[in-house]
Amino acid sequence: MRAAFDLSLYLVLDPVQCGGHDAALAVARAALDGGATLVQLRAPEWHKRAWFDLARELAPLARAHGVPFVVNDHVDVALAAGADGVHIGQRDLPADIARRLLGPDALIGLSVSNLDETAEADALAGIVDYLGAGPVYATPTKTDASAPCGIDGLAAIRAATRLPTVAIGGIQAHNAAEVMRAKPAGLAVVSAICKAPDPREAAASLAATIAQSRN
Amino acid sequence: MRAAFDLSLYLVLDPVQCGGHDAALAVARAALDGGATLVQLRAPEWHKRAWFDLARELAPLARAHGVPFVVNDHVDVALAAGADGVHIGQRDLPADIARRLLGPDALIGLSVSNLDETAEADALAGIVDYLGAGPVYATPTKTDASAPCGIDGLAAIRAATRLPTVAIGGIQAHNAAEVMRAKPAGLAVVSAICKAPDPREAAASLAATIAQSRN
Repeated sequence: MRAAFDLSLYLVLDPVQCGGHDAALAVARAALDGGATLVQLRAPEWHKRAWFDLARELAPLARAHGVPFVVNDHVDVALAAGADGVHIGQRDLPADIARRLLGPDALIGLSVSNLDETAEADALAGIVDYLGAGPVYATPTKTDASAPCGIDGLAAIRAATRLPTVAIGGIQAHNAAEVMRAKPAGLAVVSAICKAPDPREAAASLAATIAQSRN
Repeated sequence: MRAAFDLSLYLVLDPVQCGGHDAALAVARAALDGGATLVQLRAPEWHKRAWFDLARELAPLARAHGVPFVVNDHVDVALAAGADGVHIGQRDLPADIARRLLGPDALIGLSVSNLDETAEADALAGIVDYLGAGPVYATPTKTDASAPCGIDGLAAIRAATRLPTVAIGGIQAHNAAEVMRAKPAGLAVVSAICKAPDPREAAASLAATIAQSRN
């Protein structure tokens, strides 16, 4: 059985945005202190050795905070670093293959950007644990992303699946409350924390917005 | 125990150079018919789903020819596709980690470009099965490659390790005999086969050159 997980404030840690390995670790620590409930490592520009070197430090850090740590795309890095799982996209290894390689206890998330992908992903319930839906807004972070789905698209995706769904794509402090109106299980942010002057404060503020929006 | 392997004519299959998935399969088949003794898949521009889709067709094809099939960099793709092993570079997952993930029977190759890397790699004998030494010549194929080591550099690397060493980097029909004078265990080629008008003939011709140079 997979351990319980909380998608409320999902940090996608981009070490290049943070300023490198050491800065990324500091951002992760600050975000966890501020209330991040899940950490994903995503470093598309990096070679795998650098992913591994950072992932094996993030895994115990997240664990010490009682928060799952997943690796974007690279199942091998997740296995090597003792991560809790992976987050995969539509062009990564198929989810059933990732599940086979990682075993029944791993946490596996899958990105969807439209209702067709959501229907396919929903059929993988039991293999996939949660969905990442987006991009909600256009974002410069992910240059190969699909067209933005908007708040209405997010709400439609959320309503079309049994799987808990975290919203991603262009989410910042100023639009977090708006995104929460679509009632996702949480918000995934990249630059809103990675590029924040004070990542701990940025995480705490987002966590407060998310909590308020549920009342 | 690892099965025996023969580095003589080592095809690095670049599916983009070949012209896509189907063309790459056809090139691999032709090269195996022509005498390729090992096949590596390397598709740096591709998403991992595409690697996997091709790798799972290459694995049984190579096996049917009695030839090992390895995946560049991605241990997870190798595991998912049932490949015989991986070829890793200096910036990929560490060799000992790859060995742990793949198990004792996998074939693991490691790229080296100078004597320092060779000494480190030689100390990994038992974990690493062979070395890829180069680039011998400058090559447009791998834009992030180290400076060329030349024939003398290749000979020095070969002499500095117990591990069998395959030469790579800019090797073509016209310089294959020259490279073999440094007595590597074999030649790794990319465009010399992937871009050949007749990949079977190109492989057969290279195989003949390699065999002759050993007399």
